[in-house]
Amino acid sequence: MPKPSSFRSRLYEIIFKADTPAGKAFDVILIGIIVFSVLVVMLDSVRQFHERFAPLFNALEWGFTILFTIEYVARLYCVQQPLKYAKSFFGVVDLLAILPTYLGILFPATHYLLVIRILRVLRVFRVLKLVQYLGEARSLLLALRASSRKITVFLVSVLSLVIILGSIMYVIEGEENGFTSIPRSIYWAIVTLTTVGYGDISPQTPLGQALSSIVMILGYSIIAVPTGIVTVEMSRTTNKKVLTRTCPVCSSEGHDADAIYCKYCGAKL
Amino acid sequence: MPKPSSFRSRLYEIIFKADTPAGKAFDVILIGIIVFSVLVVMLDSVRQFHERFAPLFNALEWGFTILFTIEYVARLYCVQQPLKYAKSFFGVVDLLAILPTYLGILFPATHYLLVIRILRVLRVFRVLKLVQYLGEARSLLLALRASSRKITVFLVSVLSLVIILGSIMYVIEGEENGFTSIPRSIYWAIVTLTTVGYGDISPQTPLGQALSSIVMILGYSIIAVPTGIVTVEMSRTTNKKVLTRTCPVCSSEGHDADAIYCKYCGAKL
Amino acid sequence: MPKPSSFRSRLYEIIFKADTPAGKAFDVILIGIIVFSVLVVMLDSVRQFHERFAPLFNALEWGFTILFTIEYVARLYCVQQPLKYAKSFFGVVDLLAILPTYLGILFPATHYLLVIRILRVLRVFRVLKLVQYLGEARSLLLALRASSRKITVFLVSVLSLVIILGSIMYVIEGEENGFTSIPRSIYWAIVTLTTVGYGDISPQTPLGQALSSIVMILGYSIIAVPTGIVTVEMSRTTNKKVLTRTCPVCSSEGHDADAIYCKYCGAKL
Amino acid sequence: MPKPSSFRSRLYEIIFKADTPAGKAFDVILIGIIVFSVLVVMLDSVRQFHERFAPLFNALEWGFTILFTIEYVARLYCVQQPLKYAKSFFGVVDLLAILPTYLGILFPATHYLLVIRILRVLRVFRVLKLVQYLGEARSLLLALRASSRKITVFLVSVLSLVIILGSIMYVIEGEENGFTSIPRSIYWAIVTLTTVGYGDISPQTPLGQALSSIVMILGYSIIAVPTGIVTVEMSRTTNKKVLTRTCPVCSSEGHDADAIYCKYCGAKL
Repeated sequence: MPKPSSFRSRLYEIIFKADTPAGKAFDVILIGIIVFSVLVVMLDSVRQFHERFAPLFNALEWGFTILFTIEYVARLYCVQQPLKYAKSFFGVVDLLAILPTYLGILFPATHYLLVIRILRVLRVFRVLKLVQYLGEARSLLLALRASSRKITVFLVSVLSLVIILGSIMYVIEGEENGFTSIPRSIYWAIVTLTTVGYGDISPQTPLGQALSSIVMILGYSIIAVPTGIVTVEMSRTTNKKVLTRTCPVCSSEGHDADAIYCKYCGAKL
Repeated sequence: MPKPSSFRSRLYEIIFKADTPAGKAFDVILIGIIVFSVLVVMLDSVRQFHERFAPLFNALEWGFTILFTIEYVARLYCVQQPLKYAKSFFGVVDLLAILPTYLGILFPATHYLLVIRILRVLRVFRVLKLVQYLGEARSLLLALRASSRKITVFLVSVLSLVIILGSIMYVIEGEENGFTSIPRSIYWAIVTLTTVGYGDISPQTPLGQALSSIVMILGYSIIAVPTGIVTVEMSRTTNKKVLTRTCPVCSSEGHDADAIYCKYCGAKL
Repeated sequence: MPKPSSFRSRLYEIIFKADTPAGKAFDVILIGIIVFSVLVVMLDSVRQFHERFAPLFNALEWGFTILFTIEYVARLYCVQQPLKYAKSFFGVVDLLAILPTYLGILFPATHYLLVIRILRVLRVFRVLKLVQYLGEARSLLLALRASSRKITVFLVSVLSLVIILGSIMYVIEGEENGFTSIPRSIYWAIVTLTTVGYGDISPQTPLGQALSSIVMILGYSIIAVPTGIVTVEMSRTTNKKVLTRTCPVCSSEGHDADAIYCKYCGAKL
Repeated sequence: MPKPSSFRSRLYEIIFKADTPAGKAFDVILIGIIVFSVLVVMLDSVRQFHERFAPLFNALEWGFTILFTIEYVARLYCVQQPLKYAKSFFGVVDLLAILPTYLGILFPATHYLLVIRILRVLRVFRVLKLVQYLGEARSLLLALRASSRKITVFLVSVLSLVIILGSIMYVIEGEENGFTSIPRSIYWAIVTLTTVGYGDISPQTPLGQALSSIVMILGYSIIAVPTGIVTVEMSRTTNKKVLTRTCPVCSSEGHDADAIYCKYCGAKL
């Protein structure tokens, strides 16, 4: 927290906290501007709108950029460690939200700046982070982190499976049926195993259809594995009622509600 | 409940309750008429049937409207607070079920009235609400409501993901491959992430196919998150129901919701 | 069980039981013949094979029919109550497995007899029923039966949803985009909500694509509901270790492993 | 483990163990070479790359083959029972990783050798097996094995279902709508039930669309069954792991698998 120097600490409270009326209002207005600015980027990409409203969109874009720049500077000003904030995930996202417009002056506007602009949508999470969803988001993340190893094993298995299945289909179906290379056949295997099924490449030979039937049933069945992993982990996290407690010694998180000592370093919580 | 004035309270019991034979019969007949009237609206929209049976459909539609009008008036008559009923969810649905036909006299029949007519299907829930499914529906709703915050976090994450992924694909694939604008690319990202996969827009460049492979595997894996959330919540809701029963004789716990006798001592619960 | 009259009871043991070597051999041979006969029906429907091997397929078909007829008669002979067997589910399936071929003499062979022939595949379950999979199949069925009410509520909700969504899309997209009638639009809504996504009908207008995006995310999320229902029910069934115990008084099933008295009628188990 | 004869046992430790720095480095290098060699096989199948880089790919392929041959011989040399290793799953995979290139000298290079080469991807699991993912992979496998019977019952049911549904659709839709034979209709039924939905074959008649709607909702619902099975099994496996730890000082139970100190008294576990 910053030193209690009147203005700066007041600003800090408005921008970074959500429990005062001013802080809440700031969050609601900010989230509105973010959503509106993302909408403008999206609509600007539609040819008909771009042709008719290009000057308006440009003006709005500059308006958002100036607003976000003021906000970015204010954030830098009121935090204790500006560098640490600037290097943090949300600090980088905040910078990326304003950079493309300024870069657009130097370089001719390219498509690539568009994507960076759209990253503004991530700023919504900064606001979400501050309010009552914090606990829910954390318990979701904890469950996913706790199951990350099992999910890695699962993903490596799925990747090996689609590489092998894709190669077999490349040999069975061949170039004349759209399986022009192994990477493309692997793309098909992923489309099929994940039950997406575009239909842009589909097996034509009876043998290929038989094999892809097996792939489908496999994909249909093994979706149970990530589901099972996450469900079990979530049920454990939820039942344990993990509090937002952090070990004062080793900074580890995820301690049980009834824990008295840190399970990693033995320090008193 | 209304005052015990003979006819009105008798009507109330028939229409709003389901435990008397008359009330049950009323529900069964009503559900039959609702389903039949929805079927007529559906068939009327098929060109061949409309051309051949238009007068019949029209007559049936008026028949249903008159029946539902009588029912609506009867409901208004026998409840204690007619205004409160009229403003309730089912009161509005009941009104919407009869309004389109009357409006059709004043205005030329448009497509839009059709959709309002089809809302009649919601009236089925009014009947379901009254019978034995009440408990099941309630426990489903409780589980969903309890997990609504986690689901909100999940939906905001998914929306941010498809916005970012859609924008990246818009830049990678470009207009020549069907990704004509960011909103359309976001539509594609949703089609892919949810594993629907129409195939009306599908990536053509190798890089686009590689990215969409990642989107698919992502969509395939993160479906585990809502599933996990709802499963854990349901398991909690269900377990709670089991625990609230204790045998009056042997004080044993953990009896099923449908148990009539204690499974340990045979005493009546 | 039949009276211990030498041959008949021996036959009964071979055909209906699986714990003797003869009974096991009979099951394995029967399952082989069933699978082979289903394969023949399937291959016979392929034009190229039919043109070349029609006489062979016909001969095989008669062979299977005669074998299954002998088996059917043997089953009728060795059970205590032949009529009860003939009326049971598997009794009807056994009869349907042989009837089409005989009917083919009287009537010219139609497509419809093919489907009846393919029902033979259900006979596999008769054999499965006898072996070690009994317990697993039963616990699956128990879990599904216990959750049948919740699933009904879920299915009615899904049906109402697709009817309403289909009608709205019919109005939004109209006949020119393939949504030619409400039933067809409902078909589209089911294809989309269940994340199948054929792509034979897909929204063309921006509004239609926006609505269908919502339908997809809805479909992607609510799949969690049946999954949650079945998982919770299964976990309860599995944890309780339901034995194959039946109440001697009221014939109710699904009693807990530690139950001493029937929970429905209070009788000693 | 081999006899402590200096070089051989040192080699064994490097190749087969992962807890020494040398062993870890060996694993990381090996996994890099495997991934790179699979990438080369994949890229070689793309026509443009093959035309430009065929000699380079050929040289790389020989390089990988010689490296893997040295590794294979080293493995054979340093294990105690070379024959047992050669017959094991990974022994066969190791051999298949080098065989195709040598066979390519004798026989003209065919497509089929490509698939065998791609099996190298399985070697990644050998390395994964050695490190910290072992426990996770094992608990996943245990859960799947424990539920294998239930999954068999489920798969047999799904197969019977698609055979019957496919045959009915063959009769309803007929050859003119793409359902040219029962096997092809079964392929369609699998595509639909698993919610893949290519759209290469899709029902055209109203009756066919009605039936396929039922198939879709069925497929959408019964995916809950394998999910439920695996989730329950996993939750049992995971819970078991948690329970096996007791604090030596305060005898408290229920410690996490990754806990080092007791969360109640701070004692070392």
